Amino acid sequence: MGSQLFFPRGFFLNGIDSGIKDRKKRDIALIYSQVPCVAAGLFTKNRVKAAPVVISQKHLRNGRAQAILVNSGSANACTGNRGIEDAKTMAYDLACQLGIRKEDVLLASTGVIGRFLPMSRVKQGIKKITKTVGNPSKPEFFTEAIMTTDTTPKIISSQFLTQNRKRAVICGLAKGAGMIHPDLATLLCFIITDIAIHKRLLQKALMEAAETSFNSLTIDGDTSTNDSVLILANGRVGNRPINSENRDFLKFQNSLNEVTRGLAELIARDGEGATKLVRIIVNNAKNSLSAKKIARHIASSPLVKTALYGSDPNWGRLMAAIGSSGIRIDPQRIDIYFGKLQVARNGQPTSYSEMKAKRILKKKEIEIVIDLKQGTSGAKVYTCDLTPDYVKINSCYST
Amino acid sequence: MGSQLFFPRGFFLNGIDSGIKDRKKRDIALIYSQVPCVAAGLFTKNRVKAAPVVISQKHLRNGRAQAILVNSGSANACTGNRGIEDAKTMAYDLACQLGIRKEDVLLASTGVIGRFLPMSRVKQGIKKITKTVGNPSKPEFFTEAIMTTDTTPKIISSQFLTQNRKRAVICGLAKGAGMIHPDLATLLCFIITDIAIHKRLLQKALMEAAETSFNSLTIDGDTSTNDSVLILANGRVGNRPINSENRDFLKFQNSLNEVTRGLAELIARDGEGATKLVRIIVNNAKNSLSAKKIARHIASSPLVKTALYGSDPNWGRLMAAIGSSGIRIDPQRIDIYFGKLQVARNGQPTSYSEMKAKRILKKKEIEIVIDLKQGTSGAKVYTCDLTPDYVKINSCYST
Repeated sequence: MGSQLFFPRGFFLNGIDSGIKDRKKRDIALIYSQVPCVAAGLFTKNRVKAAPVVISQKHLRNGRAQAILVNSGSANACTGNRGIEDAKTMAYDLACQLGIRKEDVLLASTGVIGRFLPMSRVKQGIKKITKTVGNPSKPEFFTEAIMTTDTTPKIISSQFLTQNRKRAVICGLAKGAGMIHPDLATLLCFIITDIAIHKRLLQKALMEAAETSFNSLTIDGDTSTNDSVLILANGRVGNRPINSENRDFLKFQNSLNEVTRGLAELIARDGEGATKLVRIIVNNAKNSLSAKKIARHIASSPLVKTALYGSDPNWGRLMAAIGSSGIRIDPQRIDIYFGKLQVARNGQPTSYSEMKAKRILKKKEIEIVIDLKQGTSGAKVYTCDLTPDYVKINSCYST
Repeated sequence: MGSQLFFPRGFFLNGIDSGIKDRKKRDIALIYSQVPCVAAGLFTKNRVKAAPVVISQKHLRNGRAQAILVNSGSANACTGNRGIEDAKTMAYDLACQLGIRKEDVLLASTGVIGRFLPMSRVKQGIKKITKTVGNPSKPEFFTEAIMTTDTTPKIISSQFLTQNRKRAVICGLAKGAGMIHPDLATLLCFIITDIAIHKRLLQKALMEAAETSFNSLTIDGDTSTNDSVLILANGRVGNRPINSENRDFLKFQNSLNEVTRGLAELIARDGEGATKLVRIIVNNAKNSLSAKKIARHIASSPLVKTALYGSDPNWGRLMAAIGSSGIRIDPQRIDIYFGKLQVARNGQPTSYSEMKAKRILKKKEIEIVIDLKQGTSGAKVYTCDLTPDYVKINSCYST
């Protein structure tokens, strides 16, 4: 990994301004592969699903896709049959322009819920962006166009050598910021790779990678209507297609995990109004499910998150959150650490230095470790602090 | 009810400054009945229970009590055996000073978690406050002494005539503000009445009253380690003790409901940093449990609560919260109203006036109505908006 970016062969990315957003900002984004890809996806578990989610799920049934069309500025959610028709039109128009099948188009939208898309602008935008196919790929314009309240673009890439010594690349591009909560897919994330892989294994690897990244991430406990994680594999590496959990599969899985975890950290760091990246680590739980539930519960507590914002070593709020997570615990055995500084032993205060604790909590990255002393399982969850800026950003979003 | 306050006979209340809090503020409070009372209580479901909760639960087993001792400034939670010993000492010292049984003392504490009580000050405080017994009762000092981040004291009273034409009074005194979430007991609340009633029926009435008040209230989704609702009935009315669900019981229940609902509204209105009281009303659900779950989920959503703060008619966030509540709903049937203004019909936007919607949301009291069109059950939940002040208050509480 590292800071250098790699891009898989055979993909074109771009983002343009079509006028969906009032201000002059990129708002339509495209990923296009020269050849049809094996494809997989994870989607929001919210029962209120946006139209692009409904259409993408349908188009993904055969495990094949060639393009992803994204718009920001409007979520096309809570828009009923008209929203579905609009999404279908987007897929159809793009397919016509690119000369591919409309079932090979996946869609994603982000923005305000409950507004219809300005379809004449969207249609113009599709024309405009397809005309740029063939020009140099512009991943930086793509990430710009999918941003809403994000303050930074989010791209992570990773590469590995296959058994037959070919270099394969995975690149993930995401938007995050608000409305992020662990529940399968939890944001917009698009992953492209040039490996050749069977669709069943691609879906399996994606689910596995999401479990310790996007599903271990919470900004504000809200789950969006539009969350989607989509992956396209175009096979341009020329490896023997991965069709079992062989060595190439394991290498692919590791690289994919790196990409998704890296994106999860970038998203937590850029949580709406966030000033700190926080890792909540729960150790020695009875099982990993209960470890994760406790870690998530802590990561969702406004009282914990506001204390972290204020660098206030108020570990009692951690105890209160652990106790109300619904998991049976023994309060009298719990140890709590800020970084390496132990602040509670067996559920009671240690004689730690408050100054030291404050110094640790003032950092831009904070690790909170909970030792339950109940078993051997653990979990790690990413989150951020809750700040006055979070409130400001979200108190005037739609208008 | 109304704004006039009534107090039941035979109770003495006071609050004094004992130096637990750094600044000169009342921090020890007492309720004392001239005669032993029938008593009942509801306590936090948090698995991390404060020492006063453990002791009060034990002392309540026989359904009898004569005094309630409360301190603010320190929660005596996460303090292990030393905390339990400190709580026992408080009950013992008070009992000695008042000449009553220590088992007839109930305790409650509120403040920072994970700090030991400054016991020499507490002991001095107990001496000081018991010396005032016999002076005129000071309920306003009592409510002052139990406040932490509350900005206003919270007292509600109600009276009714028993079948034998005697006037009975119920008076409730509470603290709220943060860490309030529906889960049985959810705050500190002390209710006194001069009715005579059997202990089983007193407990039943209290649970019933809590269900539509404290259990229908959420400020920030956090559940405290100390939440307690205690009720004392001293029988000074001289009615025939209520020992069945007769007419007197129904009158008592109605009055008690008035008191607890009134307190719940006062608490929501005075939520930490709150500028608005919000009532979330879910109608026509399949059953009342699912109605309540959806209403609570909406009331806990930071995105909904920040939009309400900003008077932003972003009803899509309501849809997203409804969809992620875990209850099976049909998004295409949902109607949403801000007050009487319908903003969504069958899950889609109506052509409502945004200015009108903003005007409604700018009021100090907001009613949001969700019509699920699934059945005939409903629920009402009280909450408040999420503001920059909530974050400020909670980012520097312990230090």
